Amino acid sequence: MLITFEGIDGAGKSTQVVKLKRYLQELGREVLTLREPGGTEVAEQIRELLLQTKHDIAPVTELLLFAASRAELVQKVIIPAIEQGEVVILDRFSDSTTAYQGYGRGLSLELLAEVNRIATFGLRPDVTFYLDITPEDALIRKFSEKSLPLAFDSEELDRMESSGLEFYRRVREGYLALHTAERERFELIDAQLSPSEIHQRIITRLEQFETARLTCN
Amino acid sequence: MLITFEGIDGAGKSTQVVKLKRYLQELGREVLTLREPGGTEVAEQIRELLLQTKHDIAPVTELLLFAASRAELVQKVIIPAIEQGEVVILDRFSDSTTAYQGYGRGLSLELLAEVNRIATFGLRPDVTFYLDITPEDALIRKFSEKSLPLAFDSEELDRMESSGLEFYRRVREGYLALHTAERERFELIDAQLSPSEIHQRIITRLEQFETARLTCN
Repeated sequence: MLITFEGIDGAGKSTQVVKLKRYLQELGREVLTLREPGGTEVAEQIRELLLQTKHDIAPVTELLLFAASRAELVQKVIIPAIEQGEVVILDRFSDSTTAYQGYGRGLSLELLAEVNRIATFGLRPDVTFYLDITPEDALIRKFSEKSLPLAFDSEELDRMESSGLEFYRRVREGYLALHTAERERFELIDAQLSPSEIHQRIITRLEQFETARLTCN
Repeated sequence: MLITFEGIDGAGKSTQVVKLKRYLQELGREVLTLREPGGTEVAEQIRELLLQTKHDIAPVTELLLFAASRAELVQKVIIPAIEQGEVVILDRFSDSTTAYQGYGRGLSLELLAEVNRIATFGLRPDVTFYLDITPEDALIRKFSEKSLPLAFDSEELDRMESSGLEFYRRVREGYLALHTAERERFELIDAQLSPSEIHQRIITRLEQFETARLTCN
């Protein structure tokens, strides 16, 4: 089973990944959590390049670098884990590409679908939890976490983080479009709810999913 | 005008790139020479990752990393140079992907065509000079250049170089297949000829090309 979390930075994905992992482990499940980009030595090197470089990266290059990191992770880690019966929880997956490179950077959605298919070897999440938040609210959260002064040094932000509010507004639009197009798989949860309330909704959804699966098999 | 050089390492591409550049400059042309992967800050970082990492890279990841580097180079450097009327000479381009990742690593040629198209934005070389050499002869050349002792330390070779003779035999097969399929564009030259003889053949071919172009326009 493959569960993914989506949302702009500051939506609270990492907190929910930790909570869900603990919950599933208490039920006796083997759980593997991973973050994208990254997860293998080479993918981590790509992550470093993507997030830390101070040079400008062409949008198609960015897309292909994310795809390279994803292909590595899917082939070497995710597929083997799923085959062993583990639950895999991913902090970001192909929907991030659609939202960030498609809606955010303006690349064509056909191109993204093509590259996503190559990079994932056709693997798709069973359920996706999208934590919805406005970029403004995410920013406020993020700044309070990092305890940045109001007149902050932009060096403290990585390359994606410093892309500007307008960019994140388009990214959110992309996520909302995914929710509209794939309501069954792509679950929207208000990220302003309390962490335990969000966790509860996630569990309820997973129980429905399990019931549906048991009924179908 | 876009001229590319192809061939396995040790075929003598770099020597010919230098000779051709000098020749064209003496004719008063603006010439830009580039090597792949690399050519922009980010592309050079990708090059470093591809050639120097000691970790195993999944074939699709390798393909996407080469593509990422190429997209960067095409969009930021090659297309602007061609638009300014410069002659661009590339040491390796999309045919390397077909030969190395397709024939060498066994990835599907349809997948490669798809990724090549994305990475080059549809840009194709006007003429390609393929310097043909057997992997055995290339190896002998390479070792005499590097003055490696016969019992050499494999740490001296980069990741692509240490892929083994069998791999390079398949790569050469790929190049020969390209020559068969696209005889007009993909010119085969015996790399065992003397450097000045090879240079002379290249010039003759380019003169034919120019004549054909002048006649057509």
